[in-house]
Amino acid sequence: MTSHSFAELLSRIRIERPLIHHITNAVTINDCANVTLCIGAAPVMAEAPEEVREMVAMADALVLNIGTLSRRQVGAMLSAGREANACDIPVILDPVGAGATRMRTESARMLLDALHIAVVKGNAGEVGVLAGADAQVRGVDFSSIGGDPVTVARAFAEDAGITVVISGATDIVTDGKRVLLVDNGHEMMGRLSGTGCMAASLAGAFAAVAGDYVVSSAAALAAFGIAGEKAAALASGPYSFRTALFDELASLIPDDIVRDARVRLL
Amino acid sequence: MTSHSFAELLSRIRIERPLIHHITNAVTINDCANVTLCIGAAPVMAEAPEEVREMVAMADALVLNIGTLSRRQVGAMLSAGREANACDIPVILDPVGAGATRMRTESARMLLDALHIAVVKGNAGEVGVLAGADAQVRGVDFSSIGGDPVTVARAFAEDAGITVVISGATDIVTDGKRVLLVDNGHEMMGRLSGTGCMAASLAGAFAAVAGDYVVSSAAALAAFGIAGEKAAALASGPYSFRTALFDELASLIPDDIVRDARVRLL
Amino acid sequence: MTSHSFAELLSRIRIERPLIHHITNAVTINDCANVTLCIGAAPVMAEAPEEVREMVAMADALVLNIGTLSRRQVGAMLSAGREANACDIPVILDPVGAGATRMRTESARMLLDALHIAVVKGNAGEVGVLAGADAQVRGVDFSSIGGDPVTVARAFAEDAGITVVISGATDIVTDGKRVLLVDNGHEMMGRLSGTGCMAASLAGAFAAVAGDYVVSSAAALAAFGIAGEKAAALASGPYSFRTALFDELASLIPDDIVRDARVRLL
Repeated sequence: MTSHSFAELLSRIRIERPLIHHITNAVTINDCANVTLCIGAAPVMAEAPEEVREMVAMADALVLNIGTLSRRQVGAMLSAGREANACDIPVILDPVGAGATRMRTESARMLLDALHIAVVKGNAGEVGVLAGADAQVRGVDFSSIGGDPVTVARAFAEDAGITVVISGATDIVTDGKRVLLVDNGHEMMGRLSGTGCMAASLAGAFAAVAGDYVVSSAAALAAFGIAGEKAAALASGPYSFRTALFDELASLIPDDIVRDARVRLL
Repeated sequence: MTSHSFAELLSRIRIERPLIHHITNAVTINDCANVTLCIGAAPVMAEAPEEVREMVAMADALVLNIGTLSRRQVGAMLSAGREANACDIPVILDPVGAGATRMRTESARMLLDALHIAVVKGNAGEVGVLAGADAQVRGVDFSSIGGDPVTVARAFAEDAGITVVISGATDIVTDGKRVLLVDNGHEMMGRLSGTGCMAASLAGAFAAVAGDYVVSSAAALAAFGIAGEKAAALASGPYSFRTALFDELASLIPDDIVRDARVRLL
Repeated sequence: MTSHSFAELLSRIRIERPLIHHITNAVTINDCANVTLCIGAAPVMAEAPEEVREMVAMADALVLNIGTLSRRQVGAMLSAGREANACDIPVILDPVGAGATRMRTESARMLLDALHIAVVKGNAGEVGVLAGADAQVRGVDFSSIGGDPVTVARAFAEDAGITVVISGATDIVTDGKRVLLVDNGHEMMGRLSGTGCMAASLAGAFAAVAGDYVVSSAAALAAFGIAGEKAAALASGPYSFRTALFDELASLIPDDIVRDARVRLL
């Protein structure tokens, strides 16, 4: 679990060009498609109940994001997820706004119960709510958790048998046994809509070429954070930052990860 | 009602970070989220009938935009709007394309009848149609009105007991008694999709921290227009303008408004 | 059929400002609106079954794109298309992902059967599938065709009585009799989500002011390709390319097309 193992996954994405099927929100769907292309994978967005199983059967990972969920869309997530499990491709769940409304909390819990999820990625409040901890969520970007997020994440990962990612200034990645802390990133990323969703797309792209989802999730977050650091140096506000962020992701090379990843094993 | 009162509202947004719930169109939903973040508020987009009331209950303003309406979405707007009224938070209505199709005209009228709307913001044709004036709308961006828009806006505002905003080269803001004219802005704003929708999001953010919706609407339009003027100086086309517009909104400070707002009391 | 005839169409778009009604996918809907504005036309997006016929009746072209289709949306496409046929305005079909799932293939075939389509624009695999050729499609951006694409496109165009466009490094445009090859463009366009959809929007804008859809489609692709070539010279990655691409489209003048179009009659 060195920077070389993270860098190696970026090389594999560029060579294998995995297909990442998304069922995602309307706000950031374009960002998710473009971030997937920039990292070197291929995005496809499809959520008609009639076609999701066929599309999943071609895909290398499935990303489920409940940011603008509907009852119909959650149904499509369930079918797509079952097919992904049958095909043995990783399913990434981004429980956007879990804790803000009952529908979001219950939909995320239902997907966690019904599917074999590889990675859950959320902010501290969203993950805290799903973990049953004392947590607060207002809308989709304000959240807090009572207690230590590492302890909450580790217990949740162990109980659920999944990899848990809590995004933040320092990202936490754990499967209940190992805990990796990713220090890459820049505060500018929090000033732009969709960076959380983009992180989930990248987690999908890296998981698609990996066997170990702790390593692939940390690699995705390190790669994204490094691109964010480079972009911030070029930006004069959130939108010039956005332009630079996508450009930097597209030009990121494995050596950047070897040199710049700041990932610690706790 | 001086530039200082407009600038003061920007300070309050930055401090209070109000949550702005949007039920909006698919075309510019990302722009609306990012413009809300750039001004310093927090966006949330949610339109599932099962969750809108809960989300509204956390929010500080509600923005309804019918740009890509569906029957289901209009139903969600109605429930969300009723909850917003019960919670006494301002509701902003952007009647995109009212007059172009019966469904848009009738949906906008129904929302105006059923809800206590704080601010209606549209172009001259859209507002003219809702006011019962002689008006023409083709698609969502060509419209004209027979008669004087100030007279139409004033009568409509007085009859309906709302604040009416007609966007244009000079924006009109009136509650039927006071009429403010906002001269800020740049013609580049008309060459970019979504600037009308962004103006409604900003009107929501400013209304969330204000008691007087004539003042808050004028402040929102002045702030947006000032950012547009600054951005136009940096742009070589509509998309470099877009990048600069969001950057300038994010870096706008109250002193910019004090210095550059061009708002006249008629 | 010289560069002057292509350039002339750009002038007409700028003068007539045709209204282009889109029923399109959620991923690139904003790109399509902005590309339509940049070329000088007016976009409108509307897909509620209750309003599509009224909106089409105001429009000068209709663009149907199945990139994130639903059963309901395909129904709206059918009604809108019938109205477009009754109004005698051109219908452009972008069969995104045809061949990837049965629903996409069947929906595209149904629209081709039920409507008088003016132009079908897809990649080699999508068009190959609809033409009944041996073709492969994975997701929405990987596709290949067995046999010579010109032969496939020509036979399909002749059989169906439509203009067929296959996008690629060299674009193919044919009505079964004439075959035009468009060499403009840049590989950067393939690294950005939505360039295929934008090409269909431009094909709609050019068709709206033309009688000959072979000429208008080639003009659209040449204009887009020229803007792409200019933009690539300014870009340091896919997103700075995107900014430049829209800016260049907006500043494109007929003389650029006269000078830079690389269109060959086969």
